[in-house]
Amino acid sequence: MSITALGTNAFDDIQSPLGSLTRKLGGSCTHFSLAARHFTPVTMIGVVGEDMVQTLSELSELTQLRTDVVRVVAGELSFHWQGAYEFDLNSAQTLKTNLNVLQNHSAELPDNPQNGGILFLANDVPQVQLKALQKKHHFDFTALDSMNLWIATARDDVKKAMSLVDLVTLNEGEARQLTGEANLLKAGRVLLSFGPRYVVIKRGEYGCLMMTREGDVFCLPALPLEHVFDPTGAGDSFAGGFLGYMASQKKYDAITLRQGLVWGTVMASFTVEEFGCSRLRRVTASELQERYNKFISVTQHTGFVA
Amino acid sequence: MSITALGTNAFDDIQSPLGSLTRKLGGSCTHFSLAARHFTPVTMIGVVGEDMVQTLSELSELTQLRTDVVRVVAGELSFHWQGAYEFDLNSAQTLKTNLNVLQNHSAELPDNPQNGGILFLANDVPQVQLKALQKKHHFDFTALDSMNLWIATARDDVKKAMSLVDLVTLNEGEARQLTGEANLLKAGRVLLSFGPRYVVIKRGEYGCLMMTREGDVFCLPALPLEHVFDPTGAGDSFAGGFLGYMASQKKYDAITLRQGLVWGTVMASFTVEEFGCSRLRRVTASELQERYNKFISVTQHTGFVA
Repeated sequence: MSITALGTNAFDDIQSPLGSLTRKLGGSCTHFSLAARHFTPVTMIGVVGEDMVQTLSELSELTQLRTDVVRVVAGELSFHWQGAYEFDLNSAQTLKTNLNVLQNHSAELPDNPQNGGILFLANDVPQVQLKALQKKHHFDFTALDSMNLWIATARDDVKKAMSLVDLVTLNEGEARQLTGEANLLKAGRVLLSFGPRYVVIKRGEYGCLMMTREGDVFCLPALPLEHVFDPTGAGDSFAGGFLGYMASQKKYDAITLRQGLVWGTVMASFTVEEFGCSRLRRVTASELQERYNKFISVTQHTGFVA
Repeated sequence: MSITALGTNAFDDIQSPLGSLTRKLGGSCTHFSLAARHFTPVTMIGVVGEDMVQTLSELSELTQLRTDVVRVVAGELSFHWQGAYEFDLNSAQTLKTNLNVLQNHSAELPDNPQNGGILFLANDVPQVQLKALQKKHHFDFTALDSMNLWIATARDDVKKAMSLVDLVTLNEGEARQLTGEANLLKAGRVLLSFGPRYVVIKRGEYGCLMMTREGDVFCLPALPLEHVFDPTGAGDSFAGGFLGYMASQKKYDAITLRQGLVWGTVMASFTVEEFGCSRLRRVTASELQERYNKFISVTQHTGFVA
């Protein structure tokens, strides 16, 4: 089962206490897709400037990611994000956003998308997500992510988009911001009341929490890591590992979702090891399996009788 | 296998965004013991003023906790702690400490403690812990907890005490404070280098991390809770559930330790539901088992093939 991922492809400038880099390939759709492609064919939908053509072509060659339907607008520059992290590396501060090509263009699904599979709407303008969701009947399963900026500036559109998908992912702070609830279980229930069947709240180095409309609650720690360089894209690649695994299993039951969250956690643990998506571009299937095994060994506590 | 717990018995005044209470029974040894007694006989070692005699006697009747060897000093008042919590309830701020009886007296093991079992040194003056550890050969297993105050004022004694025990528990902030390492895996390794075989780092609502001298790493989330009133004593009762379970199993291998941490987590989830140790006094075996089952269902992700 394939995945169609719509969102941003960007060049990122990142400052952190551990170093800084400029014009690294990034963007919500890029990080998500680079993770998900380990499990299933992924088609990226986005819109970029001429300055990213070469980068995307190399990426596709290296990773077998389908990037040929990303729209290139002549004479434009790609979206450019500048962000910084404090010492704890847990939350990004946006220093500057140059919309560039996104000023007058937006990512858009083809008129007749291939039927079936998962549609993931990575963080992007809620109006862009709403437009894509007009074609949601072409897909078996839909999910979206958003961010603090849109919650602050387009709250109603964010909620409307959430009402139309099967699954929502948000980070902890965004979940509190959107719902006004400090307690995560209460925040999760408010998110579910907007309409999705599943809510996944991402807690950075502390793991994640999933809640379902049926009342299931699932809590998973992250893998403790010794070397964290750059959390940019961790949440997107987490979603990529998660939904990629689900697509590969072709089912959406509670056990598959929980297993998927483990794979999302494994994927994000690679993302943060290097700046931008460098590590995610290189990671191999055997490295992923090895780290999956490590995660199981680090978190297993059941299977023993109390 | 029994537990001997040495530490403070206090009256606490607690302010939190959710309410405030005065002269609630508290103290590191009290919270620990009230949790551990669910698994194994526990003897509390401490020193209190005349104002706590009646309270301890009632506690003993209600809980079968052995409190008769707590020393009562005539003409003195018990240790009195005043603390406050901010909105996130994750860390306590000490507003005032009245040492009272602890000014000139300290908790002390009997000359010839009963041989065998676990000795737990709940948070107390490091010199008091060091004195108790002169009798550590009477016990099969020793563990201690400490706090930011002693790390700031008696760092060398804290490290020396840690070098003499099998297991150390500290919260996340204290582990960073004592080791100077922001990264928890690095902090844990520094703590292990002081001498203990096991280190358990408590992360409040985010769970815990255990590291062993042999290189084992274990990570456990906390149970997501909807109603948290007062985290006072959560860490102590976590240790109580953890070591209580280990004592009941009479072994200290990796599986028992992991299971013990689950029971510690379950115990702490009750502690925070009401002010002081009210909930911990009342909790029943069947409530504990029910919540254990809930914790397993909320965290289980293995046993499924990827």
